[in-house]
Amino acid sequence: MKIKFLIIAFLISFLLSAQPQLPSLMPYPKSVIAQDGKYRLNASFNASCVADAKDDILYSSVNRIFQGINRKTSLYFKQQYIKPGTDSKTTLKIKVAKKSEMYRGVDESYSLLVNADGILLEASNSIGAIRGLETLQQLLQKDNEGFYIPFVQINDEPRYSWRGLMIDVARHFIPIDVIKRNIDAMTTVKMNVLHLHLTDDEGFRIESKLFPKLTEKGSNGKYFTQDQIRDIVGYARLRGIMVVPEFDLPGHTRSWFAGYPEFASAPGPYEPGPRFSAPVNSNEPINIAAIMSAPTPTLDPTKEEVYAFMDKFFGEMATLFPAAYMHIGADENNGVAWKNNPAIVNFMKQKGIKDVHELQAYFVKRMYGIVKKHKKTMIGWEELNSPDLPKDVAVQKWIAEGGFMKSNGKPLDIAAKGNPVIISTGFYTDHFLPAYIHYQNQNLPATDHPNIWGGEAAQWTEIADAGNIELRIWPRTGAIAERLWSPANLNNIENMYDRLFSLSKQLDEQGLQHISNYERGLRRLSSGNEYYYLRNLTDVLAPVRVMKNLFGRLGNPTQLSNNSSPLVEGGDLIFPDSEVKRTFRKNVAKYLDKKDSETEVLIKKQLELWIANHNALMNAGMMHSGYANLEAHSKNLQKLSEAGLKALEKINAGQTFTTEEMTGIQQILKEARVPHGNAELDVVLEIESLIKQTLLPEPKMYPFL
Amino acid sequence: MKIKFLIIAFLISFLLSAQPQLPSLMPYPKSVIAQDGKYRLNASFNASCVADAKDDILYSSVNRIFQGINRKTSLYFKQQYIKPGTDSKTTLKIKVAKKSEMYRGVDESYSLLVNADGILLEASNSIGAIRGLETLQQLLQKDNEGFYIPFVQINDEPRYSWRGLMIDVARHFIPIDVIKRNIDAMTTVKMNVLHLHLTDDEGFRIESKLFPKLTEKGSNGKYFTQDQIRDIVGYARLRGIMVVPEFDLPGHTRSWFAGYPEFASAPGPYEPGPRFSAPVNSNEPINIAAIMSAPTPTLDPTKEEVYAFMDKFFGEMATLFPAAYMHIGADENNGVAWKNNPAIVNFMKQKGIKDVHELQAYFVKRMYGIVKKHKKTMIGWEELNSPDLPKDVAVQKWIAEGGFMKSNGKPLDIAAKGNPVIISTGFYTDHFLPAYIHYQNQNLPATDHPNIWGGEAAQWTEIADAGNIELRIWPRTGAIAERLWSPANLNNIENMYDRLFSLSKQLDEQGLQHISNYERGLRRLSSGNEYYYLRNLTDVLAPVRVMKNLFGRLGNPTQLSNNSSPLVEGGDLIFPDSEVKRTFRKNVAKYLDKKDSETEVLIKKQLELWIANHNALMNAGMMHSGYANLEAHSKNLQKLSEAGLKALEKINAGQTFTTEEMTGIQQILKEARVPHGNAELDVVLEIESLIKQTLLPEPKMYPFL
Repeated sequence: MKIKFLIIAFLISFLLSAQPQLPSLMPYPKSVIAQDGKYRLNASFNASCVADAKDDILYSSVNRIFQGINRKTSLYFKQQYIKPGTDSKTTLKIKVAKKSEMYRGVDESYSLLVNADGILLEASNSIGAIRGLETLQQLLQKDNEGFYIPFVQINDEPRYSWRGLMIDVARHFIPIDVIKRNIDAMTTVKMNVLHLHLTDDEGFRIESKLFPKLTEKGSNGKYFTQDQIRDIVGYARLRGIMVVPEFDLPGHTRSWFAGYPEFASAPGPYEPGPRFSAPVNSNEPINIAAIMSAPTPTLDPTKEEVYAFMDKFFGEMATLFPAAYMHIGADENNGVAWKNNPAIVNFMKQKGIKDVHELQAYFVKRMYGIVKKHKKTMIGWEELNSPDLPKDVAVQKWIAEGGFMKSNGKPLDIAAKGNPVIISTGFYTDHFLPAYIHYQNQNLPATDHPNIWGGEAAQWTEIADAGNIELRIWPRTGAIAERLWSPANLNNIENMYDRLFSLSKQLDEQGLQHISNYERGLRRLSSGNEYYYLRNLTDVLAPVRVMKNLFGRLGNPTQLSNNSSPLVEGGDLIFPDSEVKRTFRKNVAKYLDKKDSETEVLIKKQLELWIANHNALMNAGMMHSGYANLEAHSKNLQKLSEAGLKALEKINAGQTFTTEEMTGIQQILKEARVPHGNAELDVVLEIESLIKQTLLPEPKMYPFL
Repeated sequence: MKIKFLIIAFLISFLLSAQPQLPSLMPYPKSVIAQDGKYRLNASFNASCVADAKDDILYSSVNRIFQGINRKTSLYFKQQYIKPGTDSKTTLKIKVAKKSEMYRGVDESYSLLVNADGILLEASNSIGAIRGLETLQQLLQKDNEGFYIPFVQINDEPRYSWRGLMIDVARHFIPIDVIKRNIDAMTTVKMNVLHLHLTDDEGFRIESKLFPKLTEKGSNGKYFTQDQIRDIVGYARLRGIMVVPEFDLPGHTRSWFAGYPEFASAPGPYEPGPRFSAPVNSNEPINIAAIMSAPTPTLDPTKEEVYAFMDKFFGEMATLFPAAYMHIGADENNGVAWKNNPAIVNFMKQKGIKDVHELQAYFVKRMYGIVKKHKKTMIGWEELNSPDLPKDVAVQKWIAEGGFMKSNGKPLDIAAKGNPVIISTGFYTDHFLPAYIHYQNQNLPATDHPNIWGGEAAQWTEIADAGNIELRIWPRTGAIAERLWSPANLNNIENMYDRLFSLSKQLDEQGLQHISNYERGLRRLSSGNEYYYLRNLTDVLAPVRVMKNLFGRLGNPTQLSNNSSPLVEGGDLIFPDSEVKRTFRKNVAKYLDKKDSETEVLIKKQLELWIANHNALMNAGMMHSGYANLEAHSKNLQKLSEAGLKALEKINAGQTFTTEEMTGIQQILKEARVPHGNAELDVVLEIESLIKQTLLPEPKMYPFL
């Protein structure tokens, strides 16, 4: 008996130790040893640094976190600013061996010790220290006696050196305040690279003093001035983040040609605008293959003036971005514009270039020389990969193996060949996938390799703008950040979600607009009275997944264009994940396993709420054109919930539905699966499991299209 | 009989015509002739301008409004940008005689005609046109058939030429994105002056390239760079708004002395910080008179170096702000620092200056010369007024007659003397007064006088910061904007509130953060479950009024200081006005008049909700230190509502409360009037009226302290 007890006790403690104990931490540290006890905060809480007095990254970060804690606790700390030379007999002691800028591979490790003596944070340099400060801020908790930091010993370091977020500021311009809020959120989850996709067909979004026509003709007035770029770079620097600019070439260049039509492979005139055009008749099915193989505006790689121009332009840009990297895009050039131009075809013949792939390699090699001349390491999307690609060019993966698009090499193969690899495949936040998909991203190699630098979340903006991009990127990118920072064996989905929703609250409190954008959107859709009922519905919707969402909108002429798109419908403002959906899913899974009456009551209450919600919503009235699309979902949710209630009765009676009953239910399920307004009802699987009395299906990977 | 009917019909039509018919318009136009019919919008809605092709103010505004309507309606307009030369056969025609910058006195009139032919907007210049565009945007409405503009003929022009908003960016720094959102809101309500209070004891918030020590030592790193100032000025310019800078002298100058102690009347060293200091023992009653008569950091007006410095500094600033005005502050100098300095006393003797008031006049005259040299018109707070003040100096009134502070002249007296006057008395939004107080502001002279230029709302930031300033300023400033734009005889409070809450929704939809800040604050205070109950409570609270709120916080050492104040408690995030309070007030007034059962039911339901709310809130738990302050309010609201329910029973039974019953009720009322957490329960008067069966008291003016 005693041995059995010990085994059980051991098992329990093992299970507990295998699970994160501090649900407020994300990304979860490498080693956390929790201890009994709480370090209580009061107005005397103060801090000092043993560090280089000129370490502005450290001191600005320490003050930011210190004031954040003061604000959150409302304790009115007596010490207002932490300055070099502050008395070291303080409750928070920070020891930093030397100051450092953020660069790839910098030691980002830190240790944090909290006990009765106070808090000790140690790091070998400024960057490690600010990672530790974010952990400290996340440790702050409250009980009935007030705020405290739990006693704990943490030793932490990242798995990957490149943990990035790409934001496409070209298709819809994303202004500086939104960029800064994203930087704030990136710092919170210890990301270290902000990749700005600055140019695309729809717009040229950075000022060039050498070539002002680029923005004059190519931006509709919405772009970053060089002062703003310096502001962004400096803001990111103080938060341990490098800014890597992307100038997408040789395709995706319509906006360049508005000012410089002479650089294009086909004659102009050009205006900035979307690459994909609407089908003639929006009722026709969309022919993706035809769209993808149409000629698109592309640089003429045979003209020496193009390289002379790029040399000057990249030289100007190189001085604006101190980070060691420049991204040249190089994606999605189908070569049709080249094949259509006799002069280019002639050039290929003369040079012995046998196809457009080789011509693309020729272009990449010329750009490589220019980027190298300006002392930067070149990065490109995976289409720039070729057998003789110089080994110091990093390849950014975005295409999945075996999908609709052709992969340009597996990550470990590219790495073995000698090129650094950054993984964005499976990290596209604009695909509207739930966080667990990104968290379990199979495109990140299981084996670590020094040439696999890490990965990047990527947010394209065909159907996102300044008004909803924060809810598109966050909080899900927290799960990506954890995947890139934390040990590979930390992969429990339920634990991740606990911490993700906690992170979401922290980001909201810090000023990120993801929840505000959602709620503002709901206020806009509702006249006021039905807000509560509308939210009950939208909390269980999800945007239509992956590329279907994007291609499904080609019929709207301005939808894919810049800045004036009305991205204000239901599908534009809902989260792929919600706590309501997640709680319901957890309850259904538990009930199907245990059949306990406590969980049954919770499920029943939720189903009854959804049933009543439809009539309440309809009675409260519809005030907005986008709203009508949601009516079908509301009705479907009602019917589905009614079927769910019946399913509970069946289970209690030890019965299943008859074949006859199932015919009606199949129809309800079928209707509930139909998307409306770019949104899908996202509790169908769960209610279906109740009806069929089967376990919940495993999380699935979504197809690309 | 027939005559009686006609009289009634006439009276009804008169009453209707006296009331605004279009509740979405604020400020309400001078003349609105509504007609039967609706102009329907569809995807073909388009626009053209007959105007100067180089009128960037007009074209950027037309595109802003056009895209705003496209976004709001989700109609996907076919025309994307309105450019000079666009075909004039359009549904919206805009005719502008000539282009113009915003300057005081520019013709801001416009006419707007909407009928079956489309929409015609005419103005004599760009500024009038953009005022009309805002009216057009507010006319947009929706019914079951979609969006439309009602047929209407509007002729409009402002009552005053100076309609400003002052923001104190010195005490708590207010960053550029918040300033821009305020500019957006100002444009919506046709305001035309943004007055930035850029320097004060707590911080120096603008970069000087000539004197970088001003921000290096005086700002704790938070200030506008000159690039940002140019950005703000340009942004405001395109929206018909002038930016007027204030450099507050000779008092309120502690932050200047951090870098330049030699300019102070008393020896340093100085650090930026609040003028008011905390009492030694925070339990002692605060002695306002003692605080106000303490020596404060003040420029030494006897030193020539001071004027040489100011000449260079004002010269540098004059080039940054193209508007014709500069504000030198000149307020709240008690002269004690001067009296305490023997060299200054000696200087006064030598020059025959008999007291510190004359010394202040001497200083003002010297500054007048400097401002004039740089081709600007000087403005100052009313303390700069003196008998021999040059006639081209504008006086900004802020002190009420007969209050705690001594007035420096009545507006019409100053105007008659020959000086222009700007009224801020009664327009202080940081006094937490409900909108109707500002709307009925008795400090605005009943008689118009050409020297009364207009007025300014004023938002000081001792207890407001970037996280809550939008909810402090808006939507109430809409009522001030209407008072300054619309005819004086438009003054029905209930009508104003209809339009104010409509404006609030419009501003929210446009991206202003006032509602988001409130809701984020509530999320921060709650753990999640009790959000709904917490909001039921905070919707009927109001911040403690006027200066009591400010002075009541002197005990908290960082509360009044810059940037690190934890302004996150209940009292910091509630609105002085709310729709819930207003609806309840309206219902009580109606019921006390009519005793109708329909209104009784509404009141009863509300009281029952408040009664149930307390227990629900307490059961849901308290998670934040600031939250505890609200518990007493919640309990008091419950008790008060119970008394209100009993009052309804008494009224129905034709009874009143007995003297014995009233003793208990008086105790409940007394407790309900006690502020907690800088907030007051704001439905006490209404429930008291039910209990006493008396009419609601008239709106009252609040005392200054």
